[in-house]
Amino acid sequence: MRMSKLLLRTLRDAPADADVEGHALLVRGGYVRRLVSGVYTFLPLGWRALHKIESIVRQELDGVGMQEMLMPALSPYELWEESGRSAFFGQDALPAMTLQARGGRFVLGPTHEEVCTHTVGAEIESYRQLPLTVYQVQTKFRDEARPRYGLLRTRELVMCDAYSFDADKPAMSASYQAAVAAYLRIFGRLSLEVVPVVAQSGAIGGDVNHEFMVPSVVGEDHFVRCSTCDYAANVEAAETRPPDAGTPAPGAPPGSPVAHETPGCPGIAGVVAFLAEEGESFEAADFLKCVAVLDADATPTIILVPGDREARLPHGWRLFEEADFAAHPELIRGYIGPMGRRGTGVRVVADVSVGGRPGPWVTGSNRVDAHVSGVWLERDFTVDEWGSFVGAGEGDRCPSCDGTLSLVRSVEAAHTFQLGLKYSSVMTGGTFLNEEGTEVPMWMGCYGMGMSRLLAIVAEEHHDEAGLLWPLAVSPYAVHLVALGAGRSPAVAEATEALYAALSTLGVEVLYDDRDVSPGVKFADADLLGFPYRVLVGGKGVARGVAEVRQRAEGSDRELPLAEAAALLATEISAQLL
Amino acid sequence: MRMSKLLLRTLRDAPADADVEGHALLVRGGYVRRLVSGVYTFLPLGWRALHKIESIVRQELDGVGMQEMLMPALSPYELWEESGRSAFFGQDALPAMTLQARGGRFVLGPTHEEVCTHTVGAEIESYRQLPLTVYQVQTKFRDEARPRYGLLRTRELVMCDAYSFDADKPAMSASYQAAVAAYLRIFGRLSLEVVPVVAQSGAIGGDVNHEFMVPSVVGEDHFVRCSTCDYAANVEAAETRPPDAGTPAPGAPPGSPVAHETPGCPGIAGVVAFLAEEGESFEAADFLKCVAVLDADATPTIILVPGDREARLPHGWRLFEEADFAAHPELIRGYIGPMGRRGTGVRVVADVSVGGRPGPWVTGSNRVDAHVSGVWLERDFTVDEWGSFVGAGEGDRCPSCDGTLSLVRSVEAAHTFQLGLKYSSVMTGGTFLNEEGTEVPMWMGCYGMGMSRLLAIVAEEHHDEAGLLWPLAVSPYAVHLVALGAGRSPAVAEATEALYAALSTLGVEVLYDDRDVSPGVKFADADLLGFPYRVLVGGKGVARGVAEVRQRAEGSDRELPLAEAAALLATEISAQLL
Repeated sequence: MRMSKLLLRTLRDAPADADVEGHALLVRGGYVRRLVSGVYTFLPLGWRALHKIESIVRQELDGVGMQEMLMPALSPYELWEESGRSAFFGQDALPAMTLQARGGRFVLGPTHEEVCTHTVGAEIESYRQLPLTVYQVQTKFRDEARPRYGLLRTRELVMCDAYSFDADKPAMSASYQAAVAAYLRIFGRLSLEVVPVVAQSGAIGGDVNHEFMVPSVVGEDHFVRCSTCDYAANVEAAETRPPDAGTPAPGAPPGSPVAHETPGCPGIAGVVAFLAEEGESFEAADFLKCVAVLDADATPTIILVPGDREARLPHGWRLFEEADFAAHPELIRGYIGPMGRRGTGVRVVADVSVGGRPGPWVTGSNRVDAHVSGVWLERDFTVDEWGSFVGAGEGDRCPSCDGTLSLVRSVEAAHTFQLGLKYSSVMTGGTFLNEEGTEVPMWMGCYGMGMSRLLAIVAEEHHDEAGLLWPLAVSPYAVHLVALGAGRSPAVAEATEALYAALSTLGVEVLYDDRDVSPGVKFADADLLGFPYRVLVGGKGVARGVAEVRQRAEGSDRELPLAEAAALLATEISAQLL
Repeated sequence: MRMSKLLLRTLRDAPADADVEGHALLVRGGYVRRLVSGVYTFLPLGWRALHKIESIVRQELDGVGMQEMLMPALSPYELWEESGRSAFFGQDALPAMTLQARGGRFVLGPTHEEVCTHTVGAEIESYRQLPLTVYQVQTKFRDEARPRYGLLRTRELVMCDAYSFDADKPAMSASYQAAVAAYLRIFGRLSLEVVPVVAQSGAIGGDVNHEFMVPSVVGEDHFVRCSTCDYAANVEAAETRPPDAGTPAPGAPPGSPVAHETPGCPGIAGVVAFLAEEGESFEAADFLKCVAVLDADATPTIILVPGDREARLPHGWRLFEEADFAAHPELIRGYIGPMGRRGTGVRVVADVSVGGRPGPWVTGSNRVDAHVSGVWLERDFTVDEWGSFVGAGEGDRCPSCDGTLSLVRSVEAAHTFQLGLKYSSVMTGGTFLNEEGTEVPMWMGCYGMGMSRLLAIVAEEHHDEAGLLWPLAVSPYAVHLVALGAGRSPAVAEATEALYAALSTLGVEVLYDDRDVSPGVKFADADLLGFPYRVLVGGKGVARGVAEVRQRAEGSDRELPLAEAAALLATEISAQLL
């Protein structure tokens, strides 16, 4: 491809919507463009990289015997009522877009368990047809409240989702292992270090599931990893161990809490900073964090955890949203305290760690713009139920050995679920005739990875200040061929054209910078676009019969004879792609 | 692929939703499944065929220098207001699905002129970046009132749409010609006979445009073709020549129309048949067809044309829909007559051919379940405006020579438009700096073909009673390998396995029927699935060291030595795919 013909406009500055470095480079390098918040166009370079990821995924999934198909984005609302998941629409866990059209009420699939069980399940009549795993590369839609991190959290995304159908639980487990093995090979080919961690199943359901996490400083998730054994789990899924018994905590002194005016400080960090300026010294751990949620029965509930820990919501619970706060004016967002709740219809639950240290706490005052300190358990507030409500954190004890957990910031590259009978037992089409001729539900698994998300993760993990550093398998082109001063030197022009032709003939994907711009602009664009091989043809080199080859990621330079450069590069590149 | 593992359930009977033969076979052969009306899943065989079409399209479009990209399905409603096309939403010409979500009001793109002008246009700053043609293979959504003909008219479809950007009109024309040439090569590779016809531009706009029509007995469209010259045009776009002057028509006799009770006969054909049973002999040509429409100013209007001709609507007019009839109870669907309209606010327009024959006509009586005969122009009704309101038809005179037009039933395989400045002159991003440094709008073209629609057309054009007859380039597999009696004969099993392995090693795509079912079932499925080569391995053949090869479409049979069969077939097949 000649760069003079390519739809490509590189940008000097990072755009406003680029909140992470990899995404800023994808935008600056002309790979993607935002249409509106959370909705992106892949320009030709971005499309090529995306397509390479898709091809790798297809090869590896085909390799374990999965069969590709294509389900529609539109699905009838009734299917989601059948599974019961329409009840979760609008929540963060299942932010489905829906629409009313001539054909009825449709859901724009954020995931395809319902459609797949209904459609593929209906094709399966007998145990002889099992096991079966199908997959698709297809566009998903999510009504995200806050799209962010570029392609990491979008409203429309290209996803590869797979679904396995099995006759019994051990067979489901075998299909699951095969899918996980294929996933790990995919991540390897994408040059991503991925840690499978035990996770909560959330809105998808099922018993066993794993998130495939890439440790990353820009991650929006965290997982905990043991320093001693190989335990790794999502913060919310990790089983925390109750604190050691230790010395009994002292009882509450006489007296009552002290009020502090904290105007416009709804977060703990803000209150700590504000009070510090007022001369009052507290740490986040001195605070009692009060999180308003609806429990699984939709009862308004406050969860109490120490201010330096994250609250962990049990399955089926969810955070208060705008409408919930409006319905409960007695719970003032940012200023909630646990005092005076008995008999009000708002439950108070607390992590066991709060019981180990009954006071003094700093917490919300239940009026706007004020907090209180010197708050004590039993004296000032009571707890309706104790439990494990704290997410695992840095320094916690490993639940499976005596090691210490560390908290790893990370992004999710994929998620796999052993669904069991969750969908097959409730949806039409979910059953088959087993060897005894009895109609029983199939054991299912599902497996999802975002293609556009993987592109973003690769960009995030492989870049430097100057630009992207694509792994060869993902790079839109293998070689960035740069002619220097071809306008002034017919010899340079001729040598570069010949090298371009030779590389193309040998099947090497090459972008040829034939533009009439300065060497500085060409070098900057080559660094920004970030293909693995930069090949330079200039006057001095041509005089000596050589081209300069730089491997961008390794930072290594060497010279190759012009006459042999194409063949040598083709051999070197194809050897890496095997 | 082993058939015992393939997700495939063939059906003995055509499903209820199969209104055309090709689609019935796609469903019976396990290629596609309907989720709801107009929404389909591609099962593995269907996906493979679809993917082959996509690959051919990509090769040919890349071959003329187009660049692939990927735009989102979600687009902001504001973009469609900017182009002015939101005014057409809900009409048959632009049945867009829209939805309200957290990010605002979105349109699910039925086409991408707006998004492409906005996004790609914004990347183009200078004439140096032109010409440029981009394309995408992407999912489109259409809020069809009546999905039908299987994959031909659906609510969700995979489409390839391309957009060209040029500096001036001659350059636009050159880009257009290049795209048309690529399209014709694509149809050739898909074994489709396609006629480019001049068409109306409809909701897309622009001056010059062509439909690529496949003559087909199941077509939902018609075009006219001259028997003498190469003139071909869409029925609505064809310029009809006014009828020869001839003898002046006689004036109306005294008297008045005669009423006929025609209960439950809203169509002309039905009325003709009903009255024939009553002993009254009329032909369709005796009827005055009254078509209720809204003209470009949304004035309710009746178009009068002879009953044996189709009405042609001028650009911007549209047929009455349910709501329009409800708003105008004086226009009774199926029983509209032109009498008594003066001063009622309903305009009456008529084709000039009606003026050539003022009476007697049969027409609607303006009351339910009755028609009238003996109706005369001027005596019984008046016309507010005369024009050319008849679509071209069988036997009309060719507008470009003295030949005769014939009407060809057909399906549309693709549509191309020279858009000119329609979008670039009104949308942000539509301009560039020309060589003089002046900001001017780009000259655009757009080109669309449905991938799933092409699959349906190929199936429709290539089948017999027993099943599909895929062209090699589209067939999911090249070879259908059938083992006969492998369960009883280890020699057959061994020979078939060896042939399967040899073919696979040589890169031949082969589906191996290794199932333990009767020869009859295997033959019927092979015929139904319709791959070009059926290779049979049976006991007698193995004893003689041969396999039987049938070329399904040609109906030719031959024997090949088992030891050489794989190599011979591989050579023969790859030669055809070059």
